[in-house]
Amino acid sequence: MADAARDIEDLIELMSRLPGLGPRSARRAVLSLLKKRGPLMAPLAQAMAHVALTARDCATCGNIGTEDTCPICADPARATGEICVVEDVADLWAMERTAMFKGRYHVLGGTLSALDAVGPDELRIPQLVRRVAAEGVREVILALNATVDGQTTAHYIADALGGTGAKVTTLAQGVPIGGELDYLDDGTIGAALRARRSV
Amino acid sequence: MADAARDIEDLIELMSRLPGLGPRSARRAVLSLLKKRGPLMAPLAQAMAHVALTARDCATCGNIGTEDTCPICADPARATGEICVVEDVADLWAMERTAMFKGRYHVLGGTLSALDAVGPDELRIPQLVRRVAAEGVREVILALNATVDGQTTAHYIADALGGTGAKVTTLAQGVPIGGELDYLDDGTIGAALRARRSV
Repeated sequence: MADAARDIEDLIELMSRLPGLGPRSARRAVLSLLKKRGPLMAPLAQAMAHVALTARDCATCGNIGTEDTCPICADPARATGEICVVEDVADLWAMERTAMFKGRYHVLGGTLSALDAVGPDELRIPQLVRRVAAEGVREVILALNATVDGQTTAHYIADALGGTGAKVTTLAQGVPIGGELDYLDDGTIGAALRARRSV
Repeated sequence: MADAARDIEDLIELMSRLPGLGPRSARRAVLSLLKKRGPLMAPLAQAMAHVALTARDCATCGNIGTEDTCPICADPARATGEICVVEDVADLWAMERTAMFKGRYHVLGGTLSALDAVGPDELRIPQLVRRVAAEGVREVILALNATVDGQTTAHYIADALGGTGAKVTTLAQGVPIGGELDYLDDGTIGAALRARRSV
């Protein structure tokens, strides 16, 4: 593209590294920005620079905020006796959107994976064990993805927390709300059947 | 989302205004940026701020560059006798990627539309007519989209250029390269048949 100025090409290249954007959609996004330089492009650049400068990982739970301690860990109204363990910050945000959990979080930063050589020390699991002991946690809720790696990690953490006296629970598995049996996989239906309850 | 800091939410909201990104994918993009603050987020913010500050519309052709005159209009190697008329800067970039056209461009900024009350004066058509006369243009190539609005605009421009003596041409219509007849619409096959040529 000898047509667009060098700077604009560089911007397109950087944008195309975002998940969900390829070279084509990045070009479209940049073109749309170029047409709204005042109302959108300048504020977006400023907001991004500001967050890039101020964002940091919470030293306690691994959530991303703009302070050394994230808003959730800093909130005195959140129960200290319950920790919800999630794989990723995205999962923490998903949990928060339900507004059902009033305790604290612990972000692992991934799952155990023999293939990718991810061990417990890469995943902030030792920190979790120390936190559970130090904070006198009563219940650890494992909200890990229902994948093989997620469930392997859940088992490992349950074992690692064995000596702490904390109750370890996991999210229920079953038919999702609005789910139609005909469209669900056999594993989900089987899990829902095994975990059936009386009405 | 009371979980993420206010600044991060603002950034997600701004990102979600980009074409092709919704609230969900904007959140995913911002999360990915937050994880690559040093290598990606800071450079992207800087590149965006720089372009927002320096980008401007070429006074001659309407292309977007970082000078008052775009790289194409400023290039003495580009033929002055041929002007390719496109609807949008994206179309100009698409033409340039073919590297087949060595003349200059004129970006209309849209198509005539009675519904949206877009008339010739909104589209830089008077500027085109003046350019064709002033620059002694021999040929005007109408590279407008093969839509109803695009073709209406093409007809209007051909009429408006009637008195200038410039030859007005338009892109050929037919079967796209790699196209299979079975998957093409009737209009395209009909146009290709009408414009058939001897081998």
